[in-house]
Amino acid sequence: MPAKTEVLGIGNAIVDVLARVDDTLLDKRGLTKGTMQLIDEPQAEALYGELGPAVEMSGGSGANTIAGLAGLGIATGFIGKVRNDQLGKVFTHDIRATGTRFDTTPASEGPATARCLVMITPDGERTMNTFLGASAGLGPEDIAEAAIAGADTIYLEGYLWDPPHAKAAFKKAAQIARDNDRQVALTLSDTFCVERHRESFLELIRSDVDILFANEREIMALYETDDFDEAASHVRKDAELAVLTRSEKGSLVLRDGEAHAVKAHRVERVVDATGAGDLFAAGFLAGLARGKSLVQCAELGALAAAEIISHVGARAEADLKVTADKAGLL
Amino acid sequence: MPAKTEVLGIGNAIVDVLARVDDTLLDKRGLTKGTMQLIDEPQAEALYGELGPAVEMSGGSGANTIAGLAGLGIATGFIGKVRNDQLGKVFTHDIRATGTRFDTTPASEGPATARCLVMITPDGERTMNTFLGASAGLGPEDIAEAAIAGADTIYLEGYLWDPPHAKAAFKKAAQIARDNDRQVALTLSDTFCVERHRESFLELIRSDVDILFANEREIMALYETDDFDEAASHVRKDAELAVLTRSEKGSLVLRDGEAHAVKAHRVERVVDATGAGDLFAAGFLAGLARGKSLVQCAELGALAAAEIISHVGARAEADLKVTADKAGLL
Repeated sequence: MPAKTEVLGIGNAIVDVLARVDDTLLDKRGLTKGTMQLIDEPQAEALYGELGPAVEMSGGSGANTIAGLAGLGIATGFIGKVRNDQLGKVFTHDIRATGTRFDTTPASEGPATARCLVMITPDGERTMNTFLGASAGLGPEDIAEAAIAGADTIYLEGYLWDPPHAKAAFKKAAQIARDNDRQVALTLSDTFCVERHRESFLELIRSDVDILFANEREIMALYETDDFDEAASHVRKDAELAVLTRSEKGSLVLRDGEAHAVKAHRVERVVDATGAGDLFAAGFLAGLARGKSLVQCAELGALAAAEIISHVGARAEADLKVTADKAGLL
Repeated sequence: MPAKTEVLGIGNAIVDVLARVDDTLLDKRGLTKGTMQLIDEPQAEALYGELGPAVEMSGGSGANTIAGLAGLGIATGFIGKVRNDQLGKVFTHDIRATGTRFDTTPASEGPATARCLVMITPDGERTMNTFLGASAGLGPEDIAEAAIAGADTIYLEGYLWDPPHAKAAFKKAAQIARDNDRQVALTLSDTFCVERHRESFLELIRSDVDILFANEREIMALYETDDFDEAASHVRKDAELAVLTRSEKGSLVLRDGEAHAVKAHRVERVVDATGAGDLFAAGFLAGLARGKSLVQCAELGALAAAEIISHVGARAEADLKVTADKAGLL
């Protein structure tokens, strides 16, 4: 691995538990399809008991993006908190196995490693219930100035805004990045997450964020509008570079006076939408790191997203670098 | 779930850790492709460290067969040992979520829940390294006479012959089944397993086994010959009903004077061969339980095997019952 870090992610360190469910289970539990809801450990146990056979795989929005970037040949690092338990070992193994530098000290006591129960409905959509566990224990003490200052770009996951201690870590990282002229990228993560933190997200975007990633629903939630074009015109004023994803409608990239609408990559069948946004961000950031045009960055994002939604799980099965090379995008 | 158990499996309770590898890793470690090798916990840790990102999924040969049977609508039970740790909970959740009765007491001390490191090469073949851990602690005390006597068929996994305590459990179960006029089915599991236990397997087959499952390589290893037809003529004399699988060459079913060669089910691409034999046995036993002809049983076996090799992991992704119904086989 090169000594230099090109992209350093900070996010929740989560193991996904993926299970197929019928829509009736979502109705029964009053869950909104496509969103993420926080639950506590007893709720996680109870819900797990209702799920069918499952598959365990490392996840976490920011960590998925970092794993994708590593797969695209970018020098990556990750900061996030696990416990020193079996799932913590799984998360640690998997992120390191991508070539990513990961040395946040695991918690030796307190709640277990975070789990996200991902319910996949027959339409390929995923609805998530997350027990944050040890990942909420990430704090400013886990943010080393040298790590932040040594990375070209810091990628922050909006979900980290939920646990107060992690939010402090997040703010410290953004400040160090700012002081060292590093790029700061942020993903809004989820509509409910936006609802919970609208004002502070807006403040952060206006002051500290260079690159904002959001999907259609998130950007509309941020600006409290049902009109995507209106949300897009707002974000142009607030963000230096905004990357808005719209599922099968493609993406819209906005910077200064520029606006580029880029098509989605065709997939035969959406098997599992988990990680689509995370991998889009990975492709986009990889393109930026390699000096590609904004349109090429978005095409690379679309390519990585297409790979991830054509199978179960939010980590790549195919060799993303080979795929990107073949498409002439890297 | 019906009160009656149609098939009760006894086997190792294992969580699979599936990772894609290049052939060079197998060469480097001197592993024979397609076989299973036992390793201890330090070896498991070392090998895990060399593997790329992995997926965790419940496995275990006999347990895969039972999960497949449950998916085909058969009333099932399973006996196997986990520890009361995180992977033990995963195994327990997944087997129960299929509708299978599973109430072997988990170990509260001693080695961790068993793990099988499954290395999937680009050709779709799998090579396995298993740390038996808690599953080797299965013993005669875990075999309740009522459970065995209450099941129509007992399905025994050859791998259980490895740990001496489990072998005693296995023999006790076979004896109770025999005393209660229950059917006993056995799978030879693996060529190396056959090499280790040839004489006692032959003795068991001749005295206690009603239905024998083996693949081509295993049956040739059992009779120490390179000629499949010769092995087949031997097994006709030793086993009441022998079901021999031959990958893409289909299967051969032998009973008394009868011999039926049945074609394999076509698959577009073999993604991961893990569980092919286990699921063939599931389909075959489901057919037997529903009074189908031997040819139909083998067709159902081929159908279930085809589903499992077209994706990663040894537990079904598709609804096997719907698939079997559509094919007019159940």
